[in-house]
Amino acid sequence: MNSNNEHKFFGKVPEPTLRRLPWYLSNLKLLRKKGEQYVSSTQLSKETNIDASQIAKDLSFVRVTGRTRVGYEVDTLITVLEDFLGFTRIHKAFLFGVGSLGGALLRDMGLEHFGLQIVAAFDVNPCLVGTTLCGIPIYHTDEFEQKMREYDVNIGVLTVPIEIAQAVTDKMVAGGIKAVWNFTPFRIRVPESIVVQNTSLYAHLALMFNRLNFNDIK
Amino acid sequence: MNSNNEHKFFGKVPEPTLRRLPWYLSNLKLLRKKGEQYVSSTQLSKETNIDASQIAKDLSFVRVTGRTRVGYEVDTLITVLEDFLGFTRIHKAFLFGVGSLGGALLRDMGLEHFGLQIVAAFDVNPCLVGTTLCGIPIYHTDEFEQKMREYDVNIGVLTVPIEIAQAVTDKMVAGGIKAVWNFTPFRIRVPESIVVQNTSLYAHLALMFNRLNFNDIK
Repeated sequence: MNSNNEHKFFGKVPEPTLRRLPWYLSNLKLLRKKGEQYVSSTQLSKETNIDASQIAKDLSFVRVTGRTRVGYEVDTLITVLEDFLGFTRIHKAFLFGVGSLGGALLRDMGLEHFGLQIVAAFDVNPCLVGTTLCGIPIYHTDEFEQKMREYDVNIGVLTVPIEIAQAVTDKMVAGGIKAVWNFTPFRIRVPESIVVQNTSLYAHLALMFNRLNFNDIK
Repeated sequence: MNSNNEHKFFGKVPEPTLRRLPWYLSNLKLLRKKGEQYVSSTQLSKETNIDASQIAKDLSFVRVTGRTRVGYEVDTLITVLEDFLGFTRIHKAFLFGVGSLGGALLRDMGLEHFGLQIVAAFDVNPCLVGTTLCGIPIYHTDEFEQKMREYDVNIGVLTVPIEIAQAVTDKMVAGGIKAVWNFTPFRIRVPESIVVQNTSLYAHLALMFNRLNFNDIK
């Protein structure tokens, strides 16, 4: 199921480190565009506003150490990070719920460049079932178990209404889905072995609105 | 700029609380659909898998206290939470960068139901400038300062390529934008008074891939 490249990284990387690694990656890509071959953690620190010692610690998780005076090789570090973050390998996914958000995710949002390919979608709306959106087939939710046997998929993208978020999650897990990317503002419950990534745009909006108002009244 | 309703909430609410409030809200909406009039924190705790005492503490930030034996009034709590989270008032926003992700955000993604209305977009692509997407005008980035005077906007949605993420952010801030919703995987730097909400889909993908692989090799 996994490439050897991904198997060579052992142990659980702390979530804050995982959140910072994409920041380093985007800065490294900029440096490469500028023609830089090497970068020191001090330089990366200036670019990202993160402590140099923290950067060195984070990068040690991907088994990369800088060389004295020279620093990190930009090309190597980009390759290792992209590999480590899973962006170089295509992970196939099913999408559940072709509403406004689900439909937007089915259209090209650039997710494939970062390793996620939605190969099929599920809905119960008779106007949608049997059609395709940007080449991606939309099946009836009842066909999910059968399609699990046809496709090599272990990720489910959840964009259904909150009323059925838990029921659809239960169905996904029973059918063999190992990770749920939950875009609903609903807190789904899953068995411990299942990975849940919550990306509620609404929760992020609420955070932003709240801080914006707080700044206004200071 | 702000409604009185938003001004009545003082002090900074902890981020973990702000992240949990939308979960309570979605569960309360489900309970209302089922015809429930009251809910106890114990019941909400069962639904959301969050400690009842934590829930009571979180809800005290929105100045709502449950009544002994009866609990919280469902309707009231929904109204107060939607108001508190900023979903009942329309916040106007500009979008910067009409690429695949920016384009998806301009199409209906249901953000208006949660208080965000993108009123105009900016890009430098001559094929896009001067056109509209789903009724939203796309202007040249150079017109931004002028449009700031025409529209009542204080939120900027950032969906540009990483190479220009910082430059566009600087421009936004100089023009008077107070909050940046950053969808790029780039860590932008802003003055302290500016609110930044990072929503990097790629960072979330990386987190999910990593935990998925970790579960596989356990």
